[in-house]
Amino acid sequence: MGAYIEPIGKLINQFTKLPGVGAKTAQRYAYKIINMTEEEATEFAESIVKAKKEVHYCRICGNYTDKDVCDICSLRDDSVICVVKEPKDVLAMEKAHEFKGVYHVLHGVLSPMEGVTPNDIRIKELLSRIAAGNVKEVIMATNPDVEGEATAMYISGLLKPLGVKVTRLAHGIPIGSEIEYADEVTISRAILDRKEM
Amino acid sequence: MGAYIEPIGKLINQFTKLPGVGAKTAQRYAYKIINMTEEEATEFAESIVKAKKEVHYCRICGNYTDKDVCDICSLRDDSVICVVKEPKDVLAMEKAHEFKGVYHVLHGVLSPMEGVTPNDIRIKELLSRIAAGNVKEVIMATNPDVEGEATAMYISGLLKPLGVKVTRLAHGIPIGSEIEYADEVTISRAILDRKEM
Repeated sequence: MGAYIEPIGKLINQFTKLPGVGAKTAQRYAYKIINMTEEEATEFAESIVKAKKEVHYCRICGNYTDKDVCDICSLRDDSVICVVKEPKDVLAMEKAHEFKGVYHVLHGVLSPMEGVTPNDIRIKELLSRIAAGNVKEVIMATNPDVEGEATAMYISGLLKPLGVKVTRLAHGIPIGSEIEYADEVTISRAILDRKEM
Repeated sequence: MGAYIEPIGKLINQFTKLPGVGAKTAQRYAYKIINMTEEEATEFAESIVKAKKEVHYCRICGNYTDKDVCDICSLRDDSVICVVKEPKDVLAMEKAHEFKGVYHVLHGVLSPMEGVTPNDIRIKELLSRIAAGNVKEVIMATNPDVEGEATAMYISGLLKPLGVKVTRLAHGIPIGSEIEYADEVTISRAILDRKEM
């Protein structure tokens, strides 16, 4: 940071804390801030503080909200719960406009390698929601990787004895992509899960 | 922004004001902020306000500084002035550790297309510095594009009658690159400017 005057160096340092931002990009961001009006820069800074202060986890589903219970939990069909790893997975699901139920954010997946056990993610909370009755189906929407699959299997094993239907998102060739470019694991999964036409 | 709760949506909107940041990247940045501790987020926000408040233009060279006169103007050989378009060009020059003189930031280049005339960039200020005596050489380091060349030519025309030596950064094949991949304009320039070995 030797070449920078202190306030710019410090700002660049802050920007490098954002995901995927290296020194060069952070410098461009910092210079953009310096070129803003004082009002614009203040507004930017305030939105950071405000978001951090006002956003917390929904008491029910664990997704981000600025209320006690999020809008999705308040307004939608709570007989179907979609279980995801992180809040950003809720966003991805919502963009598809297909799911009308509610969510349950685990805030992680089981990982023996990283020492993440069932007690470290929100599984107990999910079981409480099931115990309250009313839930007919749980859709496991953890990522299709080793840890996501293991987590889905583990939770499914806990829920089935409770008489809840447990389903898993379908996996296969992405729509709009070319088979030529699909990886072999995806292709074998697509073959195993093939459907009659 | 429909899918986002208000404080997150607003923060994402702020991040999209940074250069090259689209909706997806802004979302990742916002989620990173939400995942910070309150202290970290506050520190981030404060560094924005502080940089904007403390950083202004050096009274002499026009580069960014948090003092009245920047460190480069205060400490270095002011008999050689390197003229650049923007503050970030000073950074790029400084990284080469080759130039020991001072700078003059024009804050723009002449552009008839965009209505930028000699009065819109810091040419008068450069002439005042020359008039104060002492300056032996002015190195024109504007970009090697149409506007940068035109600006260098224009300023050179003003300075030469004042008895100041005016030079231009050398242009040619970049060090470490391959001739195969150099564009034809660079190659013809490199041929025209060839040096005896």
